[in-house]
Amino acid sequence: MTVLANDTFLRALRREPTSHVPVWLMRQAGRYLPEYAKLRARAGSFMALAKNPELAAEIALQPLARFALDAAILFSDILTIPDAMGLGLSFTEGEGPRFARTTVDERTIAALSAPDLEELRYVFDAVRTTKHALAGRVPLIGFAGSPFTLACYMVEGGASADFANVRTMAFARPDLLDRIVRINAVAVADYLAEQARAGADVLMLFDTWAGMLSPAAYRRFSLAPIGSVLERLPRDVRTIVFAKGVAASLPALVTCGASCIGVDWTVDLGDARRQYGDRVAFQGNLDPLALLANPESIRRAVADMIAAAGEQPGYVFNVGHGLVPSTPPDHVAALVDAVHGARSSRVEATCSERSGTAATVDGRG
Amino acid sequence: MTVLANDTFLRALRREPTSHVPVWLMRQAGRYLPEYAKLRARAGSFMALAKNPELAAEIALQPLARFALDAAILFSDILTIPDAMGLGLSFTEGEGPRFARTTVDERTIAALSAPDLEELRYVFDAVRTTKHALAGRVPLIGFAGSPFTLACYMVEGGASADFANVRTMAFARPDLLDRIVRINAVAVADYLAEQARAGADVLMLFDTWAGMLSPAAYRRFSLAPIGSVLERLPRDVRTIVFAKGVAASLPALVTCGASCIGVDWTVDLGDARRQYGDRVAFQGNLDPLALLANPESIRRAVADMIAAAGEQPGYVFNVGHGLVPSTPPDHVAALVDAVHGARSSRVEATCSERSGTAATVDGRG
Repeated sequence: MTVLANDTFLRALRREPTSHVPVWLMRQAGRYLPEYAKLRARAGSFMALAKNPELAAEIALQPLARFALDAAILFSDILTIPDAMGLGLSFTEGEGPRFARTTVDERTIAALSAPDLEELRYVFDAVRTTKHALAGRVPLIGFAGSPFTLACYMVEGGASADFANVRTMAFARPDLLDRIVRINAVAVADYLAEQARAGADVLMLFDTWAGMLSPAAYRRFSLAPIGSVLERLPRDVRTIVFAKGVAASLPALVTCGASCIGVDWTVDLGDARRQYGDRVAFQGNLDPLALLANPESIRRAVADMIAAAGEQPGYVFNVGHGLVPSTPPDHVAALVDAVHGARSSRVEATCSERSGTAATVDGRG
Repeated sequence: MTVLANDTFLRALRREPTSHVPVWLMRQAGRYLPEYAKLRARAGSFMALAKNPELAAEIALQPLARFALDAAILFSDILTIPDAMGLGLSFTEGEGPRFARTTVDERTIAALSAPDLEELRYVFDAVRTTKHALAGRVPLIGFAGSPFTLACYMVEGGASADFANVRTMAFARPDLLDRIVRINAVAVADYLAEQARAGADVLMLFDTWAGMLSPAAYRRFSLAPIGSVLERLPRDVRTIVFAKGVAASLPALVTCGASCIGVDWTVDLGDARRQYGDRVAFQGNLDPLALLANPESIRRAVADMIAAAGEQPGYVFNVGHGLVPSTPPDHVAALVDAVHGARSSRVEATCSERSGTAATVDGRG
């Protein structure tokens, strides 16, 4: 196991005191960085980058060269699993992901099965290459889409404003949707476990479209399969579940078994921490559009958020959804500096008082 | 004042027992009805219909000819106010509303003022004509966009996937956004009060884009101005605030002063009713996509929802967002029948026991 030079992020996930508030940002690697745009133009397509472990590693490390981030995240896409199921993924400029085949009729769904992990070897290679390139600087996050969010794209055939087909299926044929998410859960668990074996320190599930469901449907089609994914993962790996649009289901979500819950910016972080901060860590939740404002207002927003998060251990600063392509890199720098400067002096005292009891540092958390 | 033949909806808003669960549906008049499509094609544009009181009344009554709905709603648009402010509203096919002028720079915002109500006379005429055409059959709902939701369109210049400009303004220039929503609040209050004078029995605010804001920003830019609108309305008119995407802020929302809170389908209706059902009525909240399934699953979903709502008075059945254009009218019929059949026998007993103390029936609630 690599000894990490900076394990602040892992400590926060374990709800241990830290010398500063750790920060990383969803979509910290990618579209808003000119050095990414250059590589992207050369490679020709998004998947050409994701399928090349050396390029994927280079992209994952790009933001770390600019900003003092406390974690790196694998450069990949949540749709690698349905792609490996043979649904024919492609990305069209400005329109997002598209599948050649949709998963809607009874026969297609009956024939659906978890993919051969060999088809996803490029992802595990990218984890290994990125982990090696990081050389223990910060932890590496591996990830997958949640079983339900994958189902959204599979049933719809791509992105959608309202995911009308999957929402209708939840009422008309809940049995079919049950089967899709059950198969996805097996696939996601195997896929994440293999990412951990390849070197990922933390595993994260993105439940981007959870908010399309009523609370009862969310528990059945999204949260239950997430629970079964988490049960199948190695016990020693820390996990994060990010869910968008399910503020009303937070009491259920915090019991799913994840080490940390990532929340969108409509959740009251202070309330969430006060109510559930003794059982899970929280990650979030600045509106990513705040990054388009100006450094002064970003610093104010960061200070407000860290004050709301409170002093209890177990908090990771992040945005409440991915950075948008028009985010100015200078504003990200201002944000990261503001987070790190926020309460280091005060918490350092707390931390050194307790350093005698701190857990042994390793690369796994 | 007209005596209403069916005042079930008003009774539910007053949290009095009713003989059946009242039901109406957001966007019950319009796009999914072939008889609307015919009128729309003849008129040439959406606003040509909305600006013609006779046609607007005809459209508002179309769904009542098909379904035993317990309320009618004015046929209009939430953007009539910014249009009357001189921002130049137009509707492009498939793209939705567009303003010729956006409200983003300091000078435009300094010059902004509430519109002359004379510019909105066509709306009040439509209320009067519709009220007359209803002949006391069911109550008529007048409505407006919330001050913040109007600001979204004004700042953005139209609909948007992420309303990036208004969300950025909330961080970069909160003072400017404060001014816009303050002016909108005055305009909305005057506009709704005039609709009540023209005959609207109930006044409703649509806060469609509330979910774009963090809880703190929501309280400042949306809920506070909604409170000031409600304070300025005549005391004897019942009010409904529909808000989408603010499940986390429900405890604040129920204190805004409205008679009834309309919730989207991500809110747990049972929880909401148990926690706040003794202070406000609730309206909602079936996923409108459920209407695309089949009559059998619609009946099941209705039964589940009415069971969740519980027996406490103060519940109006509705969808959690507007009906989509592909909704089959037959499915709406199945839904309305299912709601009315749901627990009529049981509640009738309760209701007749109490009929001696029931409030006097009038057209105002």
